[in-house]
Amino acid sequence: MTRPAAATQDDVRRHNVGSLLRLLHVHGATSRASLTEMTGLNRSTVRALTTELAEAGLVREAAPVGRGRAGRPSIVVEPESERVYVLAVDIRVEHLVAARVGLGGVVLDRREMRQPRGSTDVRRTLRRLAGLLEPLLAGAPDDAVCFGLGVAVCGMVGVRDGVVRLAPNLSWVDVPLRALLVERLAAPLGLGPAPPIAVGNDADLGAMAEHTRGTAAGASDAIYLSGEVGLGGGIILGGRPMTGGGGYGGEVGHMSVNPRGRLCRCGRRGCWETEVGEDAVLRSTGAAPGVELSEVVAAHEAGDLTVRAGIGRVGRWLGVGVVNLVNIFNPQVIVFGGATREVFPLMEPFVREALTTALAAPREQVRLELPALGADSTLLGAAELAFTPLLEDPLRDLPATPVRLA
Amino acid sequence: MTRPAAATQDDVRRHNVGSLLRLLHVHGATSRASLTEMTGLNRSTVRALTTELAEAGLVREAAPVGRGRAGRPSIVVEPESERVYVLAVDIRVEHLVAARVGLGGVVLDRREMRQPRGSTDVRRTLRRLAGLLEPLLAGAPDDAVCFGLGVAVCGMVGVRDGVVRLAPNLSWVDVPLRALLVERLAAPLGLGPAPPIAVGNDADLGAMAEHTRGTAAGASDAIYLSGEVGLGGGIILGGRPMTGGGGYGGEVGHMSVNPRGRLCRCGRRGCWETEVGEDAVLRSTGAAPGVELSEVVAAHEAGDLTVRAGIGRVGRWLGVGVVNLVNIFNPQVIVFGGATREVFPLMEPFVREALTTALAAPREQVRLELPALGADSTLLGAAELAFTPLLEDPLRDLPATPVRLA
Repeated sequence: MTRPAAATQDDVRRHNVGSLLRLLHVHGATSRASLTEMTGLNRSTVRALTTELAEAGLVREAAPVGRGRAGRPSIVVEPESERVYVLAVDIRVEHLVAARVGLGGVVLDRREMRQPRGSTDVRRTLRRLAGLLEPLLAGAPDDAVCFGLGVAVCGMVGVRDGVVRLAPNLSWVDVPLRALLVERLAAPLGLGPAPPIAVGNDADLGAMAEHTRGTAAGASDAIYLSGEVGLGGGIILGGRPMTGGGGYGGEVGHMSVNPRGRLCRCGRRGCWETEVGEDAVLRSTGAAPGVELSEVVAAHEAGDLTVRAGIGRVGRWLGVGVVNLVNIFNPQVIVFGGATREVFPLMEPFVREALTTALAAPREQVRLELPALGADSTLLGAAELAFTPLLEDPLRDLPATPVRLA
Repeated sequence: MTRPAAATQDDVRRHNVGSLLRLLHVHGATSRASLTEMTGLNRSTVRALTTELAEAGLVREAAPVGRGRAGRPSIVVEPESERVYVLAVDIRVEHLVAARVGLGGVVLDRREMRQPRGSTDVRRTLRRLAGLLEPLLAGAPDDAVCFGLGVAVCGMVGVRDGVVRLAPNLSWVDVPLRALLVERLAAPLGLGPAPPIAVGNDADLGAMAEHTRGTAAGASDAIYLSGEVGLGGGIILGGRPMTGGGGYGGEVGHMSVNPRGRLCRCGRRGCWETEVGEDAVLRSTGAAPGVELSEVVAAHEAGDLTVRAGIGRVGRWLGVGVVNLVNIFNPQVIVFGGATREVFPLMEPFVREALTTALAAPREQVRLELPALGADSTLLGAAELAFTPLLEDPLRDLPATPVRLA
């Protein structure tokens, strides 16, 4: 009769300690008094749990700096961002980005590499990744612990098996990315035999990051647009990620908006990504081969009329898709990440004009925003993915057997 | 110290009794042995709870009919469908439907009335509704209890306040339907002072009914298409209805699929409903004014070439929108309700051809189906809405103060 009760008590404790660590991860250094208020737990419980977290090396406790107000100053609890970290990787079409991200979402070290289009075969990508990750691991302090590797990829991903079903812009089909990362990277990087590696869709992870600590924080329903060449959507509904029946939901880039438009890589005509992706912007603005999006933005700012006309054309298509999403999802916020982050400021007037044609009720409730995390929403989402097991059950493997990768 | 424990025990009991009644509501007559198996509760608990439900007049228990197998036959528990009922109303553009629906989803009595387009102002609609509901109530047995009124309406509804924000095809804007129903119908129909009346979007309710007891039963992610003149979507994601940030999500009919298409009632061009709604079918098939959809279907079956060509054109647009939904939502099933129920069988080849252009992973996982509940998914969804409070807490007001409308 005592075992179930004990298990329940332990469940409650695990839940509470997870909630506390998540609060610290999201909000950074927080006083015990604030933690008490935010969690609704009583003071002695908070003290006991933060002590446990500190003993496990996940947080540190310190007297507050500066003069306190009246009354006894409350101890400040801070995530051990330098010592507790994950590796995050963002596989984009034209860039590879990797970072060491500390608890609290702090980017401790970040490396980026350009990869020419057409050179994104899996073998080369993995080799480049190893080249990015090695110095990140080498640069970590001796007493720091790596809790996992999270990978964002611009394609449809089976979340459970880590297989990239389709990443048209990388020319990947059914790539068992998680298994390959374990096989090719675990040993060279000195990772353990069962390294905690998780793979997710870049848009889903961008949405997760912006919802956790960005412009969609506090929203129940949010859409994050992602992608360099293509366009994907990470969708949060009722506070939870939308996965679809099989985990492949959110491919808003393959919503056809223009039946007379160009043929998309997916085989359909006039997909949204074909009309508003990077290639469409370059084509519409008459950019010479090899021109970068940033150059188009500069030419627009300089008043180039051809570029301005092209931006207008693409901006109207961007607006059509945005209105579709507003009518279909009734989101509180749409976040323009990926390539749209660079061009949205130029296209915003056209998108806002299109928005006047949305249904009134959802139109009144939607914000259009740039990502608060800049170009790194997807990278930081990969870090969030890697932190998830730790945050769900911080003391599971601690202090006896922390999952040490390096 | 005892109150919280007692409350918790009571919570568990309420939850269990609700689960039991919902099982009986969904599956109909079920043996106590099966209920034990389905709920995981032990036999004596199931017996105690079904006894309570029987004493409250919500179910009846009887020895099984026919020869049993070896062993003691298990008592069969059956919802009191004749005695425990709700009123359900479906406000369509060209029809009003009302029914008395018994616990278990049994349609006990059903009335339908055609209303000419352009005659759907609120006052007239309410008068017609009263005319439909009066005989339904009058026909109920003397010992029957009405537990509420559920209303499906082809427009955007504020679920909490029961205000129809916009029903373009009824020409309704900001109609406080729930309040009006309370004011105009409660007294004439002899309903109580605070009658439990709930209003919902027809597509959402169609999805609820098909998910509860139709072709989407067991699916985690499903889309139900609804509408006579227009086209709405009821969307179930992860087993729960998608509401959007403000309750206005699911307006898939106002996804633009054809930027060069006709002007929609909403002010956009080429909305899906403008391309595939009833008017589009009639127009495309060259139907004379006043022709019914059923006549178009008959002409198609008779081999009328003009009609067949028109059905092909509309069918291709239906396919474009379906593929968009498959790519965006990755649903396990799309249910063709409303006007699409009549024409989908004719258009199915075109929709299936379009489906070959959907992304492979979600395409492989989707079923395209007609509603298992025929033309009454939305009506039965309105009944489900009305039953919801009873099913959530069956013994709340019983046996002391059942909510008696009539």
